[in-house]
Amino acid sequence: MEFIKGITKSELCEISDILSNQVEGYVKITGAIHTIRDMGEFSFIVLRKREGLVQCVYEEGSSGFSIKNLREGMTVVAEGYVNEEERAPQGFEVRLNNITILSSPKEDAVMPLPISKWKMRTTLESKLAYRPVSLRNIRERAIFKLQEGIVRGFRDFLYSQNFTEIRTPKLVAGNAEGGANVFKLDYFGQKAFLAQSPQFYKQTMVGVYDRVFEAAPVFRAEKHNTTRHLNEYTSMDFEMGYIKGFEDIMEMETEMLRYVFHFLKDKYAKELKLLEVNLSDILQIPTVRFDDAKVLVSEKYNRKIRNPYDLEPEEEVLIGRYFQEEYDSDFVFVTHYPSKKRPFYAMDDPSDPKFTLSFDLLYKGMEITTGGQRIHDYEEQVKKMEARGMEVSEFSNFLMIHKHGMPPHGGLGIGLERLTMKLLDEQNVRETTLFPRDLSRLEP
Amino acid sequence: MEFIKGITKSELCEISDILSNQVEGYVKITGAIHTIRDMGEFSFIVLRKREGLVQCVYEEGSSGFSIKNLREGMTVVAEGYVNEEERAPQGFEVRLNNITILSSPKEDAVMPLPISKWKMRTTLESKLAYRPVSLRNIRERAIFKLQEGIVRGFRDFLYSQNFTEIRTPKLVAGNAEGGANVFKLDYFGQKAFLAQSPQFYKQTMVGVYDRVFEAAPVFRAEKHNTTRHLNEYTSMDFEMGYIKGFEDIMEMETEMLRYVFHFLKDKYAKELKLLEVNLSDILQIPTVRFDDAKVLVSEKYNRKIRNPYDLEPEEEVLIGRYFQEEYDSDFVFVTHYPSKKRPFYAMDDPSDPKFTLSFDLLYKGMEITTGGQRIHDYEEQVKKMEARGMEVSEFSNFLMIHKHGMPPHGGLGIGLERLTMKLLDEQNVRETTLFPRDLSRLEP
Repeated sequence: MEFIKGITKSELCEISDILSNQVEGYVKITGAIHTIRDMGEFSFIVLRKREGLVQCVYEEGSSGFSIKNLREGMTVVAEGYVNEEERAPQGFEVRLNNITILSSPKEDAVMPLPISKWKMRTTLESKLAYRPVSLRNIRERAIFKLQEGIVRGFRDFLYSQNFTEIRTPKLVAGNAEGGANVFKLDYFGQKAFLAQSPQFYKQTMVGVYDRVFEAAPVFRAEKHNTTRHLNEYTSMDFEMGYIKGFEDIMEMETEMLRYVFHFLKDKYAKELKLLEVNLSDILQIPTVRFDDAKVLVSEKYNRKIRNPYDLEPEEEVLIGRYFQEEYDSDFVFVTHYPSKKRPFYAMDDPSDPKFTLSFDLLYKGMEITTGGQRIHDYEEQVKKMEARGMEVSEFSNFLMIHKHGMPPHGGLGIGLERLTMKLLDEQNVRETTLFPRDLSRLEP
Repeated sequence: MEFIKGITKSELCEISDILSNQVEGYVKITGAIHTIRDMGEFSFIVLRKREGLVQCVYEEGSSGFSIKNLREGMTVVAEGYVNEEERAPQGFEVRLNNITILSSPKEDAVMPLPISKWKMRTTLESKLAYRPVSLRNIRERAIFKLQEGIVRGFRDFLYSQNFTEIRTPKLVAGNAEGGANVFKLDYFGQKAFLAQSPQFYKQTMVGVYDRVFEAAPVFRAEKHNTTRHLNEYTSMDFEMGYIKGFEDIMEMETEMLRYVFHFLKDKYAKELKLLEVNLSDILQIPTVRFDDAKVLVSEKYNRKIRNPYDLEPEEEVLIGRYFQEEYDSDFVFVTHYPSKKRPFYAMDDPSDPKFTLSFDLLYKGMEITTGGQRIHDYEEQVKKMEARGMEVSEFSNFLMIHKHGMPPHGGLGIGLERLTMKLLDEQNVRETTLFPRDLSRLEP
């Protein structure tokens, strides 16, 4: 009988092994041939590895193989001596003794995009059409490595605050956010929907673990074709019980963002540098009431208030600009949104029920978070549903939590792709979405 | 202007604060009233907190409030002096001076299940029908806390092995696993599917990061109503490039499981104890060829081989039993599944193309993982698709990766709920699914 005992040590080495001097002299490394550059007397064969690019040097005669057999896109094992070389991407190069080909691209394949260029200088359309290939560009892939870091930081921070990670269903019988922007499907003869948010479930789980979070896909059948909407995106949600007020949620988010920024600077410095991002420390975040914010920007920027119940995208931009100019802050919490624009589970402000104990977080002039305190009292929740003409009996599963007792609680949802977009100063959320889904895009 | 500066220190304390002696004497704690027990001279008011239960003691007269105002399901702030008490759940109790009510359940609500009992002794049906409430039971919620630990361990281990976490779309234009068990929906006039697996995308991302993983929902429109099928479940996938053979994947999984078990014993000891789970160390995992396994159990347990191309559930049970009896192993890798039963992207064994370089991992007699090496060569992949009568042009987005070069690679998918089920020796996968989706269940 044969047994698998775990990972066997490999003779292959990684960039970090070489940089940390764990490996010296003669090395074997794998990689994809990113580019071949003929320099006359010799050639550079640049390998793309997960940690970066490695410059290998081929010299006719001294390397034990012919460069004529090599093509870009092949994957290989390269062997040779490591030499310090300041001008090489990693500060070293490998002088090739041998190359073994592991795999080859299709014989006549023509690369549709110049992925080995630093910046591809192509349209977003092309990048998305050829996503499986364009992501091999060093800059492109750094975006999603950094995105990994955002989610990691989010989770690590919340674990440290005693939150429990949950996994809620995406196939649901009813939806929390209402409206028409919901995908429907047939579920063995029943009507099912794709979850617009984990709202009902995360509130439910506050009754179980007090503090919960989830980072998972949500689905919105929005017919908007804008630079900031997606039909599927990653929502980073948390929900917490025993709050004194909705300020507790804003405090938790502020601390979380501070942690994430530190985490990125610590663990993803390479990607930040590569993408030329300079993250400032988050010391504090100003808050402004929704109605005050409207007046502030209307006065300062001479803009008429057209819709008193909602913020237009342009107003968000101006509020962002205002707090950047006046308080040097990329972030601003806008609080107390009008009740009629918030969902039925939002808690109204007892001192003025036209408004809710809720907030959005704007980052560089764009909403990246919606949050607030939720109704925990059964009668209050039923009353608000009835006032909106909702069929209360359809929500008996959700109302089970209020019926049997819920602590005062609230939470928020953060759009991961939007947060990444603003962090990188990108102009289109598709730039920071691995495989975006929009009105016309269902593949790749 | 007001600013949010981060989390403000709270005067409330947690169980761990008291147990670590960070807090002594007079304390304030929040919690839900789990149960009230009248002991004659005094009463126990047991609070449910995220870390466990806290026994509070109420004595008529000496506590500054009346117990008559309290009901189970209320959430409260309790204050009083901490006393050592061996018989209390945490080794201490709080002698109550005061209780402030934060929220109350519905006036006449009758709890449908005895959630404050240690074991509820009710049917699975009832537990699922009242999931939002049944999860408040201490034992029930421990299951999903432990499940959190499995995913955390999975991720932590893979980060340490230089895997990158990815987020792939669940709304897709085509599906990798084929068959009829796929949910369809209308996507702005186009036909879309819910992803049965992240297969295409994780292979794609191997071309970008070499090693990738994802733990996310997948959807299977299976019409089976069994104890081990779900229509939505969490798939823990990883995929790795530059493999020497499919054994590399089994080695990585073995090492990962070993890490996860250690991680649970280290960080989730409380839940393991509560659920009476004794995790043994994973030292090695036996491997057996698919065809040999069939013969082995047929001979040992006197069972006819009926289907030479697939393992019947009963055969999986017997293989599990065989390796438990003969090698004292809960796990066994079954390798070299027949080509006709594996998907088109599976790599055939060059030494006998009727079989594939693939494996399943059985855990206590049930498949919890399917994995294997994938085809990386363009011509080979196209040929296999054509041999199966597939329309190659429909897969041009997937084939883009082979066309432009892919390293030898492979990977696997692990069903989180099944792994949890077997780990806890549960008999139904719904027991270890937070909100299961099956033929008749779309809520809660």
